[in-house]
Amino acid sequence: MKILIKNATLISMSEKRKKIEENMDIKIEGNQIVGIGQNLNDSTVTKIIDATNKVVMPGLVNTHSHVPMSIFRETVDGYALQDWLNKKIWPMEDKLTKEDIYYASLLTFLEMVKTGTTTINDMYFMTEEILRAANNIKVRLQTSRTLTGQNSAEMQQRIEELNCLLENNMGKQQRITFNIGIHGLYTSNRECIQQCVAFAKEKNLPIHIHFCENKQEVEDIKTLYHTSPIEVLEQEFSFQKLILAHCVCLTNEDIAKLKNFKVSISHCPISNLKLGCGIAPIAEMLAQGINVSLGTDGQGSGCNLDLFETMKYTALLQKGIQQNAKLLPAYEILKMATINGAKALSLEKEIGSIEEGKKADIILLDLSNSVVAKPLNDLFSTIVYNAKGTNVVTTLIDGEILMENRKTLYEEAPIFEQCQKIIKRIQ
Amino acid sequence: MKILIKNATLISMSEKRKKIEENMDIKIEGNQIVGIGQNLNDSTVTKIIDATNKVVMPGLVNTHSHVPMSIFRETVDGYALQDWLNKKIWPMEDKLTKEDIYYASLLTFLEMVKTGTTTINDMYFMTEEILRAANNIKVRLQTSRTLTGQNSAEMQQRIEELNCLLENNMGKQQRITFNIGIHGLYTSNRECIQQCVAFAKEKNLPIHIHFCENKQEVEDIKTLYHTSPIEVLEQEFSFQKLILAHCVCLTNEDIAKLKNFKVSISHCPISNLKLGCGIAPIAEMLAQGINVSLGTDGQGSGCNLDLFETMKYTALLQKGIQQNAKLLPAYEILKMATINGAKALSLEKEIGSIEEGKKADIILLDLSNSVVAKPLNDLFSTIVYNAKGTNVVTTLIDGEILMENRKTLYEEAPIFEQCQKIIKRIQ
Repeated sequence: MKILIKNATLISMSEKRKKIEENMDIKIEGNQIVGIGQNLNDSTVTKIIDATNKVVMPGLVNTHSHVPMSIFRETVDGYALQDWLNKKIWPMEDKLTKEDIYYASLLTFLEMVKTGTTTINDMYFMTEEILRAANNIKVRLQTSRTLTGQNSAEMQQRIEELNCLLENNMGKQQRITFNIGIHGLYTSNRECIQQCVAFAKEKNLPIHIHFCENKQEVEDIKTLYHTSPIEVLEQEFSFQKLILAHCVCLTNEDIAKLKNFKVSISHCPISNLKLGCGIAPIAEMLAQGINVSLGTDGQGSGCNLDLFETMKYTALLQKGIQQNAKLLPAYEILKMATINGAKALSLEKEIGSIEEGKKADIILLDLSNSVVAKPLNDLFSTIVYNAKGTNVVTTLIDGEILMENRKTLYEEAPIFEQCQKIIKRIQ
Repeated sequence: MKILIKNATLISMSEKRKKIEENMDIKIEGNQIVGIGQNLNDSTVTKIIDATNKVVMPGLVNTHSHVPMSIFRETVDGYALQDWLNKKIWPMEDKLTKEDIYYASLLTFLEMVKTGTTTINDMYFMTEEILRAANNIKVRLQTSRTLTGQNSAEMQQRIEELNCLLENNMGKQQRITFNIGIHGLYTSNRECIQQCVAFAKEKNLPIHIHFCENKQEVEDIKTLYHTSPIEVLEQEFSFQKLILAHCVCLTNEDIAKLKNFKVSISHCPISNLKLGCGIAPIAEMLAQGINVSLGTDGQGSGCNLDLFETMKYTALLQKGIQQNAKLLPAYEILKMATINGAKALSLEKEIGSIEEGKKADIILLDLSNSVVAKPLNDLFSTIVYNAKGTNVVTTLIDGEILMENRKTLYEEAPIFEQCQKIIKRIQ
């Protein structure tokens, strides 16, 4: 299929095109962007998308989630992380069937498409069902069967499950990539962690792990490992590419040490606030040149997958807590939600910006009827502070149009109904 | 006109009806709510609103804004309060004509109606134009000509202007009420403040004032008054009903002292973050029994007037900075956006809840097509964490339907175009 997007206001997020460009056309062949310019024409295109008065930008990248957790949205309020997991979430998760995981994943992928996110990084279990849903909705997914275990034998079993998943699926479907998801240092011991890291080295895959989400976690790690979390990283994870989710409880000294890793942060501000964890010091991380990307976490704590909301929280929280309005200009925030996310997932050559040769993961925003975008002054700021997922009218992933003018390809009502039934049953 | 709202999911926010009620009807005669119950019927009603699958709740109350500042939306990023005012906002404001104020106010009132706010508290100048716009769009407004002056003569002139405004307008239009808006302690001296307070006593009106918005303001007040802001309040404002906007920089001792005033706080979290002011300690204020309501501030710093966003920021920020997920349950947040706001404006007998005898300021929310509200678990939490102004489909103020199924009564495009022209001219 050849697609021509016509007459766009283009925010490419590429190094070559940092400025907003008007009246731009983007040509797509198969899953690739093949042309960007004014007045592009091609009589062989099979589909024209009129982007007049629309903003065209790269699809957003969500670097930390638990895909099937859509069903837990607003089930629980007022619990700190550990209680929330132990008393509320884990008992419900124990009751989930494969079919539940499939439907809950469909809902999350549908939410992505409808709110402008084209790539998501997942960490959960029954991953074959998540893959089945991803292939149905056709989103870009990076995933892993979560590794967690109380002893070496248990961990080895999980690693074998993950190995089986990788053997069966890796490289077979180009929208799907994998990493090694380790739940956390606090839910496994040192020996188990060493097994995971050895496996990640063997597979040459990055590690995705919850890290320093709240004070209690840091304390638990100190008790279990007799040293600080950052020192466990230094001892066990060196030379491994890392995606660290949360990083709320880091000192400036920790951050200076993190610089020496091949590391990306997944900043999940909404979940961190909701669970009473705190606010990650990402302004300091950015100042140290660390790659910071954005995540929503699961909807159980992160409320929803709307990364436009996450962008706004990210900017405002740092300005507020640092009492420095100059921090995090809007364009830096847009980078965090796009190209920085692509870097975190080792996909920066494929996605994260609109460039010739990259995959066509593209969203169209319509701000023209939005009263909160009137008058339209700085466009970057308007997107960060006044756009929402609902402003996304058209979503392309891998060159396929998954939503056009707010209409998706999917029967939405049965997905909604099924998810409502699941949560009613397991609650 | 007699209106019957049928088959609603009712969140009344009244003391008598704290629970969510299904299949509820609400009858309105003129501007008043006259009946609430199931299967209400009346052959004389002139209009039926079908609220099947809709949430019906009181219109939201915004207790701190500067109505004509809509045009400054996303004009400036990266400036702290004082620089933002001195270098950016005040030079632009100097160029505003009466007609500009009128159109900019129309935009704000339109934004209110479209995002579910039915009452707004304003502080600006050329107030006659703001009133003209409010009467055109038909919103509920509390306002004042802002009092600020460098010396007694200048302040006296402003007080006379405000007096003239009050004489001409007070009591004439029941949607419009007044207070005494004083810009701040830091922009006037003690003598000027005494003039304002004397005038407020004479008129028996509450005072609305910016208070402790950031550290610089507190320092400036200490320099100017040789004492702390809270002590200036104690010395000059006792026995006067107060609406204090912001209150970011208050200690626990300050808050304990505030308890002794007839005071309401207008918490404006988004503006406070954007200008690098910080986060107001409202959990402590609430714990002390102080009435805390919500404000957006002007769009120049507050981005937009969507109080659903403000509700979410309010809940999340306190949970996050206090590292206590139990703080501020969703229902408390809904109170802040409705009945607490009404109390702040001395309108709690008129608005802020859906009760027989109160004015019909009512909004209908449609969450049925919103993917971020699927599955629907706790409804209070869903509204606070996953609803947006765009979910408001129908807005009634004072018994008049100002928006129905997202369609307002107004020609919107000319308002948008005019506001775009104004900001282009004065920037």
